[in-house]
Amino acid sequence: MTDLLSELLAGDRRALARAITQAESTRPQDQVLSNSLLDRLPAIEQQSIILGISGTPGVGKSSFINELGCHAVDRGHRLAVLAVDPSSTATRGSILGDKTRMLDLARHQESFIRPSPSAGVLGGVAAATRKAIRLCEAAGHNVIIVETVGIGQSEVSVEAMVDLFVLLIAPGGGDDVQGIKRGVMELVDAVIVNKDDGDRRRLAQTTVSDYRSALHLFRAKHPEFGPSVLTCSAVERRGIQEAWDHISELHAMLVASGSLEDQRRRQRAHSLVAEVTAKVTASVDEATKAATEELRFAVQAGTRDPSSAAQEIVDELFSSLGATE
Amino acid sequence: MTDLLSELLAGDRRALARAITQAESTRPQDQVLSNSLLDRLPAIEQQSIILGISGTPGVGKSSFINELGCHAVDRGHRLAVLAVDPSSTATRGSILGDKTRMLDLARHQESFIRPSPSAGVLGGVAAATRKAIRLCEAAGHNVIIVETVGIGQSEVSVEAMVDLFVLLIAPGGGDDVQGIKRGVMELVDAVIVNKDDGDRRRLAQTTVSDYRSALHLFRAKHPEFGPSVLTCSAVERRGIQEAWDHISELHAMLVASGSLEDQRRRQRAHSLVAEVTAKVTASVDEATKAATEELRFAVQAGTRDPSSAAQEIVDELFSSLGATE
Repeated sequence: MTDLLSELLAGDRRALARAITQAESTRPQDQVLSNSLLDRLPAIEQQSIILGISGTPGVGKSSFINELGCHAVDRGHRLAVLAVDPSSTATRGSILGDKTRMLDLARHQESFIRPSPSAGVLGGVAAATRKAIRLCEAAGHNVIIVETVGIGQSEVSVEAMVDLFVLLIAPGGGDDVQGIKRGVMELVDAVIVNKDDGDRRRLAQTTVSDYRSALHLFRAKHPEFGPSVLTCSAVERRGIQEAWDHISELHAMLVASGSLEDQRRRQRAHSLVAEVTAKVTASVDEATKAATEELRFAVQAGTRDPSSAAQEIVDELFSSLGATE
Repeated sequence: MTDLLSELLAGDRRALARAITQAESTRPQDQVLSNSLLDRLPAIEQQSIILGISGTPGVGKSSFINELGCHAVDRGHRLAVLAVDPSSTATRGSILGDKTRMLDLARHQESFIRPSPSAGVLGGVAAATRKAIRLCEAAGHNVIIVETVGIGQSEVSVEAMVDLFVLLIAPGGGDDVQGIKRGVMELVDAVIVNKDDGDRRRLAQTTVSDYRSALHLFRAKHPEFGPSVLTCSAVERRGIQEAWDHISELHAMLVASGSLEDQRRRQRAHSLVAEVTAKVTASVDEATKAATEELRFAVQAGTRDPSSAAQEIVDELFSSLGATE
């Protein structure tokens, strides 16, 4: 255990992988060990860049992250890429898949790539990812990219654990062509239009204008800057440096104004509430499963009021907890 | 109690007001009576229109609701208007305020106007409003307008209890002129640009175009129709009939496709989970207040991991509940 901590702090990638596996484990003894490890991690002095990148399949997320990541590594950063897919039932085998998607990055000694924990993981994918970020930071990775699959719910939870959130899209026009779920736009600090190459360059410009007008209608998430819209081509390696410079500048502004530290404090407080709620809800679900099926049905059908049904469930839960203690 | 139920079902407005006051009461005996009343309400056969209307101060919400409401009443509907203001600390006295704001409507025998419950109400403003909607329906009001103040959080909870959600805005241009919180747009079934009158008519058209392009980027909330953008002038009584016809048509589509019933079932199930969570969270807060202040601080500062802190809080809660039983 002490070995794991010291190896982790020394930046050992296998120790980091092992610590993340332990955090994802559903075995109670692993959870005790993992919580103890997390509590003993020293405070991180330097302000790492924790970057959420979302995009629907086909927009070139892997190529973009591969290029952006290599650029960051070339500038001396230690990179980690964490995938978040709430629908994932992947086993460890998919590490290979992720590494194949980001070949150049995977070759770098300074980079660490980790696939999504499977959906059944204790406390959910969100909690597991939050812990993985913390462990990566402790292992000295100062640029952590959290990649999400763009199906809505994952973005909301990921936004609550990253410093900046980037939406990657492909050039496209017309209604709803990107299939972006309503609600994702509100989380976005920057939109990057990838595949700005070949005969799509004109379309990419239209897409930039469309998103600029759309984003103007919303309040900026950070008071320091409004959401911006950039273009790039991962395959032609154009716009990558500009994207990285832009992200670094936004991050530096958040650090300088002190609002990054405020945001992280809020995120940690939010995690605490979310995890308490998740744990209590799990107990509620378990303790009242038999009773609630009938109740749920009556509530859905409108024959029982949700308030009185809720009171009944809570009373049952508390008396069952009282009985077992 | 049986008197209250029969008076309520007979459409007595004073009985309705009394039943809502009982539902909002923090006294345990009132809660028992109210839950029992709610559970004994008969299922409603006809599909009433439950309409959320949101807008920031100054867009002319009261005048619009006054005109739209009178139009609905003239068509033979029985109307109820419920205000939702999560920051409200209003006492009953403000009923007068609401009735003054909607003078014509308040004169109608068929209409019922109710100010927001104050923020301290048991179970929160959202639960109180949900119950008020149910009571209004039982009293025979088949058009129920839920008015929110447009500050973000209230819309999210109101959207979970209405059939359709309308955002009222004033003509305006440029960035963020409406002060609309990001996230509200995703809830919207229709945007209505009020004050389309005098020298604002050209600006109103620009605002319509802006919102149409913005809304095009999002997925439609209902598969039956995408969000629409209309104009009206409440003071000149123009566009009110069109707005009402549009809302009625959207609602009829939801009824015909069966998705209104599905939506309401989901909303009831959601209410149940929300109320259980709220009640359990209230117990969590109470049982661990002393312990969590220090923990919360450590988590925010980053010296305690949220997961292990959450486990500690939950363990304490459950053992305290066990001890008191």
